[in-house]
Amino acid sequence: MNVNGEHYRSIWRESDGAVRIIDQTRLPFRFEILELETLEDAARVIETMQVRGAPCIGATAAYGVALALLEDASDEALEVALSRLGGTRPTAVNLQWALNEMALAVRNHPHESRAQIAFQRAAEICHEDVETCRAIGAHGLKLILTHAAKKSRVNILTHCNAGWIATVDWGTALAPIYMAHDVGIDVHVWVDETRPRNQGAALTAWELGSHGVPHTVITDNAGGHLMQRGDVDLCIVGTDRTTRGGDVANKIGTYLKALAAYDNNVPFYVALPHTTIDWGLLSGDDIPIEERAAEEVTHLTGLKANGEPESVQVTAPGSAAANFAFDVTPARLVTGLITERGVAEASEAGLLKLYPERAHD
Amino acid sequence: MNVNGEHYRSIWRESDGAVRIIDQTRLPFRFEILELETLEDAARVIETMQVRGAPCIGATAAYGVALALLEDASDEALEVALSRLGGTRPTAVNLQWALNEMALAVRNHPHESRAQIAFQRAAEICHEDVETCRAIGAHGLKLILTHAAKKSRVNILTHCNAGWIATVDWGTALAPIYMAHDVGIDVHVWVDETRPRNQGAALTAWELGSHGVPHTVITDNAGGHLMQRGDVDLCIVGTDRTTRGGDVANKIGTYLKALAAYDNNVPFYVALPHTTIDWGLLSGDDIPIEERAAEEVTHLTGLKANGEPESVQVTAPGSAAANFAFDVTPARLVTGLITERGVAEASEAGLLKLYPERAHD
Repeated sequence: MNVNGEHYRSIWRESDGAVRIIDQTRLPFRFEILELETLEDAARVIETMQVRGAPCIGATAAYGVALALLEDASDEALEVALSRLGGTRPTAVNLQWALNEMALAVRNHPHESRAQIAFQRAAEICHEDVETCRAIGAHGLKLILTHAAKKSRVNILTHCNAGWIATVDWGTALAPIYMAHDVGIDVHVWVDETRPRNQGAALTAWELGSHGVPHTVITDNAGGHLMQRGDVDLCIVGTDRTTRGGDVANKIGTYLKALAAYDNNVPFYVALPHTTIDWGLLSGDDIPIEERAAEEVTHLTGLKANGEPESVQVTAPGSAAANFAFDVTPARLVTGLITERGVAEASEAGLLKLYPERAHD
Repeated sequence: MNVNGEHYRSIWRESDGAVRIIDQTRLPFRFEILELETLEDAARVIETMQVRGAPCIGATAAYGVALALLEDASDEALEVALSRLGGTRPTAVNLQWALNEMALAVRNHPHESRAQIAFQRAAEICHEDVETCRAIGAHGLKLILTHAAKKSRVNILTHCNAGWIATVDWGTALAPIYMAHDVGIDVHVWVDETRPRNQGAALTAWELGSHGVPHTVITDNAGGHLMQRGDVDLCIVGTDRTTRGGDVANKIGTYLKALAAYDNNVPFYVALPHTTIDWGLLSGDDIPIEERAAEEVTHLTGLKANGEPESVQVTAPGSAAANFAFDVTPARLVTGLITERGVAEASEAGLLKLYPERAHD
């Protein structure tokens, strides 16, 4: 989508061969572009969350494999790359998907052509992701149109960032919103701050603001109250991993919003590309939940009045903190899964109706 | 309770007549004491939340009336004081209760004795609050003992700050926890950060740490996940206003935790003095919800590495923010109301069983 009137993707390869990303840890206060030159560059930007969002992580990992093969195209180097990148974020299932795709693409090719093939496959993965998100957007747009037919302004609540910078373009949860806005529907987005890393207040708000979509940042505590008041027409969130049974792992706190939506008869949708579905897992109970550094809870970086970033401690000195990155929303609380093939009921039967080829996986 | 080994209350009158409070906006990083000299001082520290917590606000308002009468004991001055203090925080019902008590105490007395009577009544209100909190603690302790009989460590989740600094001493939600800790039960508290003002991460964590109670700060998003994992044995929160029907207005986000507790069969208790019950209101739908400045969401004050406080912006520049201070947890989600007279079912019948004198209010 657009930044300062110019169209960007979250990751791209320049005509001179350089792979570039937007440093998402600098947003919303600085718009900085980083160049990835090595496997280690790619792994590090995933670990530090300079790139984040399942599809964007997958695309970055794909280019990471290509960069590794540019340096050393041996089987050993390929294995090292797959292992290094695969260990960066345990919860993201399409990180593994992208790595498998890359391995499949290059493995049976001679060493000298592997890098070129890898870059080509990485570019395809990016292109496919854009088309997938566009399709998710179109299916979600239909849901928004249903609400727009009933009232002039449609209020949508979202959690974390499942926008274009979390994918390659368009986003997942935000794709229908961008499309609704672009076709002239009066959409307004309640943006959950999304502690501890504030991806909502920082990234989603920045994305929507850059594109001109009306939105209001709220604390993670506020969504339930807004739903009780009737100020939320529907929720749309993304997911890092959805099970075959329709359970949804997403940013910590998603489960609480799903409970509130259910309690107030607010439709709760999860937008996802098929790469996010873990066909091998029936129940969300089996999804490993990443625990991250306590410092992400105890400290927080913002912008001082003088325009400089500053990290401040926000918890009582000496108090311990725990930092669970995701939670699992059980399928029973999910109104529907917005995929690139349409809107599925959040169940094995619902998903298999759209993905019949997975019946025997 | 203790700070640096010394016992404090949240508000007290020195033998020389000075009224002092702990500046709660400076916690947890600085322990500073302020002197209240005028009505305006008292009103201002309530508005700026230098004192907060319903009982502590009530006590401060009581002393505010006394300070006003010290300067001018006329009926007009009394009315001005009641009106000025009554307008500081619309949701706190026992602010109104304390003001009524003060008016009742002084109204039919000659002007020259009003100030002395007012200070005496304010001191009584403080004393009564301490005894009330002690009784709440004892009743809540029984609930914790039930859990302690089943497992060695009892994990309790709390939201915001309903500790001793929110009252005069002991606290409401934290009183049972302090008592359990003091009698040697291994209690561990999950402390919700409680955005936007971080009263959990700042005040509850500071209180518990100062008293030596094991605790872990978590983001407001994390509690649902912890309950799903079985890591929460019970929840205890405070309330700013509870209706006759048992609906509970408390810090924004309480409703979300109550939903999660209900969904996971975790008992959800609300601790409250009778002064917090609004006998004139049956349904929580009728409780006015205070909206506060957006800047509390967009900006946040913490401590820099050099030990100096700093306010930083945490939202995307240009993005609007909304700041609802409370939400209402419906009685159906509340396991019980821990009052100074015992644990009531969260219903009109349950409350009237403990407060039969209110049957015809």
